[in-house]
Parts: sequence; C-alpha cells; structure tokens
Amino acid sequence: MSLDLSVDIVTLTRAVVDVPSESLDEAVLADAVEAALRSHDHLEVVRDGHTIIARTNLGRSERVVIAGHLDTVPENGNMPSRLEGDILWGLGTCDMKGGVAIALSLAAALAEPVRDVTWVFYEAEEIAAVHNGLGRIAREHPEWLAGDFAILMEPSNAGVEAGCQGTMRVDVRTTGERAHSARSWMGHNAIHDLAPVLATLATYEPRTVDIAGLTYREGLNAVGVRGGVSGNVIPDEAVLTVNYRFAPDRDEEAALVHLREVFDGFELTVTDSAPGALPGLERPAAAAFVEAVGGEVGPKFGWTDVAKFTLLGVPAVNYGPGDPIYAHKADEQVPVEHLHRVHDRLRRWLSGDA
Amino acid sequence: MSLDLSVDIVTLTRAVVDVPSESLDEAVLADAVEAALRSHDHLEVVRDGHTIIARTNLGRSERVVIAGHLDTVPENGNMPSRLEGDILWGLGTCDMKGGVAIALSLAAALAEPVRDVTWVFYEAEEIAAVHNGLGRIAREHPEWLAGDFAILMEPSNAGVEAGCQGTMRVDVRTTGERAHSARSWMGHNAIHDLAPVLATLATYEPRTVDIAGLTYREGLNAVGVRGGVSGNVIPDEAVLTVNYRFAPDRDEEAALVHLREVFDGFELTVTDSAPGALPGLERPAAAAFVEAVGGEVGPKFGWTDVAKFTLLGVPAVNYGPGDPIYAHKADEQVPVEHLHRVHDRLRRWLSGDA
Repeated sequence: MSLDLSVDIVTLTRAVVDVPSESLDEAVLADAVEAALRSHDHLEVVRDGHTIIARTNLGRSERVVIAGHLDTVPENGNMPSRLEGDILWGLGTCDMKGGVAIALSLAAALAEPVRDVTWVFYEAEEIAAVHNGLGRIAREHPEWLAGDFAILMEPSNAGVEAGCQGTMRVDVRTTGERAHSARSWMGHNAIHDLAPVLATLATYEPRTVDIAGLTYREGLNAVGVRGGVSGNVIPDEAVLTVNYRFAPDRDEEAALVHLREVFDGFELTVTDSAPGALPGLERPAAAAFVEAVGGEVGPKFGWTDVAKFTLLGVPAVNYGPGDPIYAHKADEQVPVEHLHRVHDRLRRWLSGDA
Repeated sequence: MSLDLSVDIVTLTRAVVDVPSESLDEAVLADAVEAALRSHDHLEVVRDGHTIIARTNLGRSERVVIAGHLDTVPENGNMPSRLEGDILWGLGTCDMKGGVAIALSLAAALAEPVRDVTWVFYEAEEIAAVHNGLGRIAREHPEWLAGDFAILMEPSNAGVEAGCQGTMRVDVRTTGERAHSARSWMGHNAIHDLAPVLATLATYEPRTVDIAGLTYREGLNAVGVRGGVSGNVIPDEAVLTVNYRFAPDRDEEAALVHLREVFDGFELTVTDSAPGALPGLERPAAAAFVEAVGGEVGPKFGWTDVAKFTLLGVPAVNYGPGDPIYAHKADEQVPVEHLHRVHDRLRRWLSGDA
C-alpha cells in the first residue's frame, strides 16, 4: 500500500487509520510512511525497526522535534474509519493517527520551514515500555532526537498540555496458608488480608499539586486483583495491582516512598514505573510555541512520552487533535475541526506565519 | 485388567489405586470392578454408566447401602502407590480407594451377611455435581439406593463422622465505570467497592453449632477474587467468590438468607449449592452401627454425598480409612492400620460378630 501525503488532512487521517497497526504489527504502515517520506528530497530519512525519522537540514538556528507513534491498541469493533458530519470515528483517530497524519502532511508540504524539524514516527507506544521505539532511539541514538523543543502529538484537545504525570504500578501481595474451605480454621485466608489495603484505597485522598500555574491531579487506584486456588480451598496468595499517577513534582523514588508509607506493613513490588515531566514552560522555545498556537496551556494528567524528551534535556509539550478520554475506547473519535486547527497552527508556526 | 478381590486389603487397595481413574475417565476401573463382582453368584450386579451396584438378596430384615466413588482428582506426582512402613502413599489412597477396596473385599467375601447389603461404586464425585454417578442414580433409579441405613466410605480417620455441612458459593459483584487511570475521577473503581465486603469477611465470626452432641464449625471465606481491565484502566467490575460452609441446622434457603444479611446491599449470585445433612444418629440403624464400630462419633465438616442419602430419607454416616486433610494433596496417604481396622469392623458388623 502507499500513502499520498498531498491529500487534505481528513482524507490522510482516514488513510492512516485504515491501515491496521496494532502494537508489534506496524510493519505495513511503517513501510508506507517510510516510502512516502523518502519521495521528498528535502527530507533525510532513517529507519530503525519500525521507527522512521525524517529531518530537514536547512541550518536553521532552532530545531524542533515533532513525534507521534504509529501503533494503536487492539481493534475493538471500530475499524475502518467512518466520517459522520464533524466527527471522524475509528481506532486511532484520537490516539494518535490524527496527529501522525498532520505530521506526515506537514513533513511533505514544508520543504523550507523556518525551524529545522525532526519528524519522528515510532512504534510500540501502547505496550510495555521495553518495546517503545522512541525509548530505543533515546537510548541508542539520542543524537537523532536532539533539538531545542519537542512536540508530542498525543491527543490534547487541540490545546497545549504541558508536562505529564508519572505512573508507577505496584503489586501488593498477601500470603496465607491453604486449607480445605470446609476446615478453614486450618488455614489463613490471603484474600481477607487485602481488606485493609482496599479500605486504604477506598478512603485515600489524592493530592492536587500546582506547578507553574498548572494544577495536576493525582490518583491512586487498584487496577487489578487476583487470588484463589479453587472453589473449596482457602487461598494462600492474593495480589492487588495498584497504579499511582503522581504529579511531576515527585520523582519515581519519592513516589515509591509515598506508596511504602500508604501500604506500610505490606509486601510491595514495583512492576512498572515511568517518571513524570515538569511543564518546562519557562524555556524560551516552549514559551514561544505556546504563544504562537494560542497561549492556553493545561496540565497533562496522563503519562506520555514527553517524559523521554525531558530526560534528554529537551523541553516538550503535548499538542494534538482529539480528546484523550476517547483513547482506547470503542467509540474512539476525533473532531474534524481539531484536525484542521492543529494542522493549520503547526503549519503557520513552522512557516513563520504565526 | 482384572482385580483379584481375595487378596489382603493392603494389596487390594494398591491394585485399585494403581488403576488411574481421574473423573470422567473411570471406564477401565469400572470394567474391572464390574467383572470382579459379577464372578460372585451371591451378588446381583447392575451397571449404569460407570457406576456399578451389587446387591445381596437374602431377605434380611435390614438393608445397608455402602457406597464409595471410583474417581480421583488429577494425578499430582503421586502415582503409582508406594508402601512405606505403616503408610500407603498415592493418589486416591485416602480419597477414597482405601474405602472402595474394603467394600470390594467384603462384597466378595461375605456371601451371607446378616444384613442385606447394596454395594455402590460410583463415578465422578470429584467434579461438578451434574456428573456425579450417585446423584444420577438417586434421580433416575432411587429404588436402587433404598435401605435402612447408608455408609459412605469417605475418609473419616477410621471413625464415624455424622451428617455433613452444607456448602454454598456466591459471587459478590461490584460494578463501576471505566476511565483511564490517569483521570481516575472520571470513573468509578469497582475493586475499591469490595473494601467493605472484605472487611466483613475479615471480621466475620463463624458459628459453632451443637447438634445431637456434635459440634459443627461453620466457615465463610473468600475463595477467589478477580477484577481489572488493564494496568491503566479504572476497573468497572470486580467479583469476589465466597464459600459458605454451613452447619446442617440450616438448609440452603436459610444459608442464602444469612448471606444476604451479611452482604446487605451487594449483588449476590449463587453459583453452587449443596445442602448439609443432619447427623440422624437417633435412627435405630445408625445408632446400632455406631455402637458396633466403637461408639465414637464426630461431626463431618466437609460436604459429602451423605447428603444425597439424607434427601432420599436414608440415614447415612461417613466411615472410612484415611485422614481427610490428605485428600487432594500431593502427599495423599492412608495408614495401613486404618485399612485393617475399618475392614475388620465392617466385616464383623455385617457378619453378626460385632
């Protein structure tokens, strides 16, 4: 298959959406993206796995990195795309093929942007961090991501969302002793031992944290629970998986200290962790971008790959079409107006029209 | 294969143990049992599925039903049998091929018992009730199980255990609303809603109930818990599976009324239920048996098929070799002394020597 990057942004978004690209199965879409970008002489294209990077090399005084992931979560009865009035429906319309289509369109159209641009189209953002294409590039070729400022085109309601909250998952494990449930006093019930843990969660008051005028809301939630051997056995193990979303004033270490306090006396195992990112809007490049695209900024509650840029020392924001509440939903959707607005504002900023 | 029922009880138990007969796979053992019993003219043998029934028809004033199941739970590194000193190890030695071997031995040996005997060797006790051979006979040919008294040779430490507790399993289900865990306030966490349910279980004081001098101990336990959509989603459902073991003064209806009180306000679904059985020791046939085999009686905490006889109006007790705590265990075992004692006492009672 091939992608025509010269069509209007709605048509291009639909074309990108209609190529299935569930995580680890991005080859077809990545091939099409690579081929389409290579047809433009103003771009230097490199590929690593299913991650494609295209750069202008105009010697501008400033370089912007604009990134989006090619993969989606699994199909959920929401393929192919469907345009109804002002809404484009379908898997990935929101998270984040709308943003990818905008980036592709502008990469092709803007042969001489006023800022050099590094366009990044990467694989495997929706699954375990070890697969993440942007993470691999950051580790193995950090120079490819060098820049003065980065824009991650994750859905942000077509507004700028700054920073991101960190996320940590821990397993809280209780242990007991098996016995036949007809003689339960011979054993010790590990599921019952979760009672105080759930009580703690049910009454927990999450913090709200103000940073640089943005208000971050934390959350501490059970996201999974399992236990049980069979219907007539006192269970000797139960595991509650808890997800802590923490404001970027806390690093991972501080987050874990907090969890150890909250679940004092219980066995905790960290199964997943990613740091947040401070909004960084005091950096000139960030402030200039915000000013150019309208001036309004909100906090990013979700964790996104902006944190990867932060770790590389590149200030970064989230800016993309779509309301993130529709991400990973059967009714995933993006307003057509978002596609046009983000496309237009980015084009003008990169063209020096802003 | 064939079974020689004339050998000593330890040898016969080993022979029965060494024929694999996991539930639904009892054909080979059932065939051998049927053939061995049919070789004895004093027995009238009928077969239904893999359930074999052999009767004496001597016109005695009293008829005793003596039953055991042929099946076992799955093998667990404990086959074949192994005799070490005073202990016979192996799958089914305790639950309940020791009892089956004793019944086979006596069925063959006692051509003229002082009480008519109906020997029942049935299939599929260890799995869902719908497969249970004794249950099928009770529904379709209840006359085959008619008698003045029944003995179920489930392991009871070679003592008489009277009655049995009932068992009921319910699912306690909570529902919420999904949301991304980065914006948890948009959803409602169903796992957190289990907090008061677990608190109730953790502090629940089970009853102890005295019936006819026997003390039954109840139990109310979580035996399973599940919930969770994925690591970054507020879960919209959680299910706690609870097993209530209730003393035989309560019927199933009363048990459910109790659970509805305990979990007031929560959605309950009964997934499994079986009534208990009152000890029934006031019946003359039962009292005479207890007296004959030594006079000591304990309560049966576990649920057993004695309840099926109770429903047919036949007083029944558990009486068999082996400690039930070894049932379904990798280290399943039976003391050789139990095999000899139960074999001897039953033989004497049926021969009029007691």
